Amino acid sequence: MSFKVDLNSDLGESFGAWKMGRDADVLTFVSSANVACGFHAGDPMVMKQTVKDAIAAGVAIGAHPSYPDLKGFGRRNMTCSPDELYSDTLYQIGALRAFCDAAGVKLQHVKPHGAMYNSAAKKPEEALALAQAVKDAGGGLILMGLAGSEFDKAAEKLGIPYAAEAFADRGYMNDGTLVPRKMEGAFVRDVEVAAQRVIRMVKEGVVEAIDGTVVKLRPQSICLHGDSPSAVEMARTLRQRLVEAGIEILPLCKII
Amino acid sequence: MSFKVDLNSDLGESFGAWKMGRDADVLTFVSSANVACGFHAGDPMVMKQTVKDAIAAGVAIGAHPSYPDLKGFGRRNMTCSPDELYSDTLYQIGALRAFCDAAGVKLQHVKPHGAMYNSAAKKPEEALALAQAVKDAGGGLILMGLAGSEFDKAAEKLGIPYAAEAFADRGYMNDGTLVPRKMEGAFVRDVEVAAQRVIRMVKEGVVEAIDGTVVKLRPQSICLHGDSPSAVEMARTLRQRLVEAGIEILPLCKII
Amino acid sequence: MSFKVDLNSDLGESFGAWKMGRDADVLTFVSSANVACGFHAGDPMVMKQTVKDAIAAGVAIGAHPSYPDLKGFGRRNMTCSPDELYSDTLYQIGALRAFCDAAGVKLQHVKPHGAMYNSAAKKPEEALALAQAVKDAGGGLILMGLAGSEFDKAAEKLGIPYAAEAFADRGYMNDGTLVPRKMEGAFVRDVEVAAQRVIRMVKEGVVEAIDGTVVKLRPQSICLHGDSPSAVEMARTLRQRLVEAGIEILPLCKII
Amino acid sequence: MSFKVDLNSDLGESFGAWKMGRDADVLTFVSSANVACGFHAGDPMVMKQTVKDAIAAGVAIGAHPSYPDLKGFGRRNMTCSPDELYSDTLYQIGALRAFCDAAGVKLQHVKPHGAMYNSAAKKPEEALALAQAVKDAGGGLILMGLAGSEFDKAAEKLGIPYAAEAFADRGYMNDGTLVPRKMEGAFVRDVEVAAQRVIRMVKEGVVEAIDGTVVKLRPQSICLHGDSPSAVEMARTLRQRLVEAGIEILPLCKII
Repeated sequence: MSFKVDLNSDLGESFGAWKMGRDADVLTFVSSANVACGFHAGDPMVMKQTVKDAIAAGVAIGAHPSYPDLKGFGRRNMTCSPDELYSDTLYQIGALRAFCDAAGVKLQHVKPHGAMYNSAAKKPEEALALAQAVKDAGGGLILMGLAGSEFDKAAEKLGIPYAAEAFADRGYMNDGTLVPRKMEGAFVRDVEVAAQRVIRMVKEGVVEAIDGTVVKLRPQSICLHGDSPSAVEMARTLRQRLVEAGIEILPLCKII
Repeated sequence: MSFKVDLNSDLGESFGAWKMGRDADVLTFVSSANVACGFHAGDPMVMKQTVKDAIAAGVAIGAHPSYPDLKGFGRRNMTCSPDELYSDTLYQIGALRAFCDAAGVKLQHVKPHGAMYNSAAKKPEEALALAQAVKDAGGGLILMGLAGSEFDKAAEKLGIPYAAEAFADRGYMNDGTLVPRKMEGAFVRDVEVAAQRVIRMVKEGVVEAIDGTVVKLRPQSICLHGDSPSAVEMARTLRQRLVEAGIEILPLCKII
Repeated sequence: MSFKVDLNSDLGESFGAWKMGRDADVLTFVSSANVACGFHAGDPMVMKQTVKDAIAAGVAIGAHPSYPDLKGFGRRNMTCSPDELYSDTLYQIGALRAFCDAAGVKLQHVKPHGAMYNSAAKKPEEALALAQAVKDAGGGLILMGLAGSEFDKAAEKLGIPYAAEAFADRGYMNDGTLVPRKMEGAFVRDVEVAAQRVIRMVKEGVVEAIDGTVVKLRPQSICLHGDSPSAVEMARTLRQRLVEAGIEILPLCKII
Repeated sequence: MSFKVDLNSDLGESFGAWKMGRDADVLTFVSSANVACGFHAGDPMVMKQTVKDAIAAGVAIGAHPSYPDLKGFGRRNMTCSPDELYSDTLYQIGALRAFCDAAGVKLQHVKPHGAMYNSAAKKPEEALALAQAVKDAGGGLILMGLAGSEFDKAAEKLGIPYAAEAFADRGYMNDGTLVPRKMEGAFVRDVEVAAQRVIRMVKEGVVEAIDGTVVKLRPQSICLHGDSPSAVEMARTLRQRLVEAGIEILPLCKII
């Protein structure tokens, strides 16, 4: 039996004169990149360059739409109506897709960013609005969302391709949700432990929750980070362990 | 022999809680609409609605990209590099096209807005950057620009479909450029005079300059305005005179 | 015994090329104006003009700071930290005060706008952050907030001048809070009824809640609207009824 | 005879999640800091922190207003009317001053940023608009501008305190203007040469132009940079050479 998974990370989060992220490093370990679309980070010149760099690295490209909150980097909750969410998301998908089309590559997926992601993961009407935007954008785009969240249901309801993602460096509750950041057990800091957990998710479709329960979790993509040298190091090691365990790292479009 | 011309006007220039323009009126007299894309006006919700309204009215849709200057409504000159112009334009085209795709209609053309239009009309490297964005956006998009300007040359150089536009309410110099707004003769305020001038442009391919010279000018589109009741009235009358003169009013895609 | 009250309304909510509000009308019936500071509406040119117009009309000027949300007109909830609220508010107060100083008039008060106002009315740490910004801005600024809300407590705790405001056109619950907009009884649409209620608030310090209970409510300012011809008409009539009832209309600085 | 000069540099140019500049280093060598006010960089939280840091370091604070161009970092030319320049500048001065007032320190000066600075240095009506904003802001604010430019004349005309600044690392033409960046001789890269030039400016009031001519230049402030380790090193050495030459480094308010 063959096992495979996608590795994703955020990219193109510079803006104007401000630089952010270790994009060159990130492109060495992911198979799919979530590219900022100008609402929380990224500007048209950054987007153009990021698309070019991802193509050169053979990494698939996704849109990473956000609430319109540059100053808060899309991390602040905003009460947007479903109609606002739909329109803002469709706008950002289109903007990034134009750079993909110009560069001759297909836009692969859409992963909402930050507070927009967290809020929609819990609210059906928000997840549906985002999924509808992904559907209406056409081209077989894959929606990427938190495994076991409202994203799963919205994608199923609308009949669009969907990728559940899991986090290598986060603990899980026995209902499959993430351990809140302020609770003990929220983070998995040992890379070897993290690698074993991801391998188990991919091969067995389960994860051990913080109370010892074994819960179902079968992600198509694993979210990695590249915002610090240690994060980059952890991501590289993790990728290597997956490969050693016989898991193939492939972009989403070759998995879904 | 049959004569035809496109009539265009700007649309979708509301933003958030602020309303602008008589879009419902404009949609009754134009064959092509230039829709704001969020940089000088328009927001994703406005864009969605504008696309819907244009389709309902049977009016073809174009992108109306601008410098990033919401406060100045894109009317202030900004020194943008060709790379910035290219990227900003491609971004805006993609954003609007997503709403067109979602609504099942083809994006027809791109007409740069305000200061971006005026500057590129005179600067070859800017016109080329904009034309390249239109070309790279794909889909056979038509670039619309000032007749006799650098837009003509850029479109020819890149081999993309092009529509030269003329102004019904403006005077022309004997080199085919517009009479500067502060000079006498800048504006043609009598609608019957304006109508006769446009009919002559379309049928004979010439216009009488302010010094009496007859200069070549064969536009594929005529720019109209709808920002005041009198502008709407003028546009309606003008359209009627063209029809009475046997000129067919058609969207650009049926002319170019 | 003498009775007096301030009448306030929002002003200066145009932005760039977009016009909003009937400022000239509003200035005929209010004694204090809440001037937008650029985060939800208003730009520096609008602010300059609005300050000038208010001075000419003899109306006192207050800052009307907001969440940074131009597209949402400051009406969308945003999860801002107390430090963000403090800094954003101090920034906006300073910006407007510069126009007041330049025009030779004292900035009188600060009334938070929209979602920022509604959220802080219920959350002690937010009300305190806003009150601290008002205090640190110096100059004896008066904080204006919802009567009976966390604003009252924050102002008292920090020892700053405070004006409780009430709404002429809104119903009240028996705990002194506003009837939610979607509930029956949320609005008082009959101007004569509204006038009698305000007169009672000012003279007796009570209002009749929707369940018939008479609850304490002694506002120093009444919020009026001027965004439609009917709102303007209602505000004018209401002002006249107050004057007829022997209530003096004075800016906050002559009441607090 | 005693000699003294101010050393200035830009500060507080981070924005939201993006960090920029070596502010801690810069505060060790300057006597006056130009603090970004939110239009090209800086946000209210950054401004609050920067004011606090400058006070802790004993560095005087100035406003560094800009065109409204976050994406272009205020480096792109924008055609703003004198009224727009005046209003935008007054707004930004007020915003920063609120943080100074709250921290109990006096705002010392105003130095326009980037393209706004370069444009106004050459255009009398723009320099006058900026100078008028500085004057109307009150409090004896010092305008800082390019020595020998339209700033000098505008400040004189309006009778406001003025500081001419010179650049340690730039060459000068024989008419006292800077050698354009693309010409040979535009930059003085040897720190010892730069130091000798600055010492001569301060002590003799002259600089040697690129053609060997000795031209008058008596700056009250020298602009330094801190955006790279080598710039910081150069600034430190330069400051030391000035001190060794018996020149006192003082904030502008103790010089003008």
